[in-house]
Amino acid sequence: MKEKEFFTTRRTVRSYTDRRISDSLLSEMLEAASHAPTTGNMQLYSVIVTRDNDKKKILAPCHFNQPSVMSADVVLTFCADFNRFVKWCECRNATPGYDNFQSFMTAVLDTTIFAQQFVTIAEMNGIGCCYLGTTTYNAPQIAETLGLPDRVVPVTTLTAGYPASMPEISDRLAADAFIHNERYNDYTPTRIDNIYAAKEAREDSGRFIAENNKETLAQVFTDIRYPKANNEHFSEVYREFIESKKFKI
Amino acid sequence: MKEKEFFTTRRTVRSYTDRRISDSLLSEMLEAASHAPTTGNMQLYSVIVTRDNDKKKILAPCHFNQPSVMSADVVLTFCADFNRFVKWCECRNATPGYDNFQSFMTAVLDTTIFAQQFVTIAEMNGIGCCYLGTTTYNAPQIAETLGLPDRVVPVTTLTAGYPASMPEISDRLAADAFIHNERYNDYTPTRIDNIYAAKEAREDSGRFIAENNKETLAQVFTDIRYPKANNEHFSEVYREFIESKKFKI
Repeated sequence: MKEKEFFTTRRTVRSYTDRRISDSLLSEMLEAASHAPTTGNMQLYSVIVTRDNDKKKILAPCHFNQPSVMSADVVLTFCADFNRFVKWCECRNATPGYDNFQSFMTAVLDTTIFAQQFVTIAEMNGIGCCYLGTTTYNAPQIAETLGLPDRVVPVTTLTAGYPASMPEISDRLAADAFIHNERYNDYTPTRIDNIYAAKEAREDSGRFIAENNKETLAQVFTDIRYPKANNEHFSEVYREFIESKKFKI
Repeated sequence: MKEKEFFTTRRTVRSYTDRRISDSLLSEMLEAASHAPTTGNMQLYSVIVTRDNDKKKILAPCHFNQPSVMSADVVLTFCADFNRFVKWCECRNATPGYDNFQSFMTAVLDTTIFAQQFVTIAEMNGIGCCYLGTTTYNAPQIAETLGLPDRVVPVTTLTAGYPASMPEISDRLAADAFIHNERYNDYTPTRIDNIYAAKEAREDSGRFIAENNKETLAQVFTDIRYPKANNEHFSEVYREFIESKKFKI
């Protein structure tokens, strides 16, 4: 397999040097990423580039003050965007019908494919990136800060810059944990034990459990990192926000 | 910019030779793709590999008989998967709270990032891919065919194989159409004209308009390719299906 080492040794980078990504390189990388696949060649996305420090200071709390926002040379907010396409339709005597869940999902896929292609290109050019999952939690505040109109919904954010240090490579499950041949092979408790054994045996897993006073690593996820009450609260917030931006869910 | 030519000259491939992608190369590429970023390292996805011709025949109508399904060496159905993670939680005395919209969206992002990383890796290894957007239309039939349990939802499908021919490179909008600096720069009718001028001037655009008896290219999208009634019908179907798989939307 070609380029195996590049893909298997990549890592998420959360702290960056002061070195600037030139405007021309940034545009060139975003332009190259736009050649990634897109539904019906509609390109249902926009990216808002934040370089201004005052703007980063406003965005930081939207991302629960994760330090990568202020450390990053650029913050890129990737948005599902049907606004441009709908305006085109309206200028061309065509009646758009994109204020619905399918259209929103189509734009989310386009946007995510575009963002990930950017990550790969940036990493190949020596730039580190970090996705901020908080984008779907605080979309209303982000939209307000960036001036997003109807039919434009933030989906994910990347912080990007030249790496201040290279973190360790993250572990991943063995591939047979997520590859199913011909038919979904559901998980028995024994298989679950096997799949998660290596992750649970890691030194940092033990540390997370101890630091959070939990019994198991799974409890760190369910009780601390991604708890039910948070998920449910932000589900309401995001769904209502998406509907306010004219996609009926 | 490194690798510019690779990224700007890639294309979607819809017809394939008989040459087989070896099982080991396929696994290796999927394994490498799993090193792409994933939320909290949860890897909220599964991929179902279809090589069996009888299974392809059942999947083909789910994708409106797009010929790339039967032509492909493998069909890969990428699914948002909280089943594995929830089963792990349940085996570890942890109470999962992932039956909601945020968790579904998180899994959709993880799945799409994984799928797109696979596409890039496959293309770097001489293999062509095509996304099938029909996956979100006919998810119920796809799930039935592949035996998907609760908390597993098809998000996108790729057909993959060695290219029978290399299609033309698709056009894309100029990058300043989708890049916004600091704040969303909304589109005036004049700017819409400028952004879409090159696409509308293409020879194939004229052909699409003529073949479909339309006045404008935008009408080909709104009236033929992605009409409102279809979008609304499949919005209902997908939302109900996702809820039946235990994600409350």
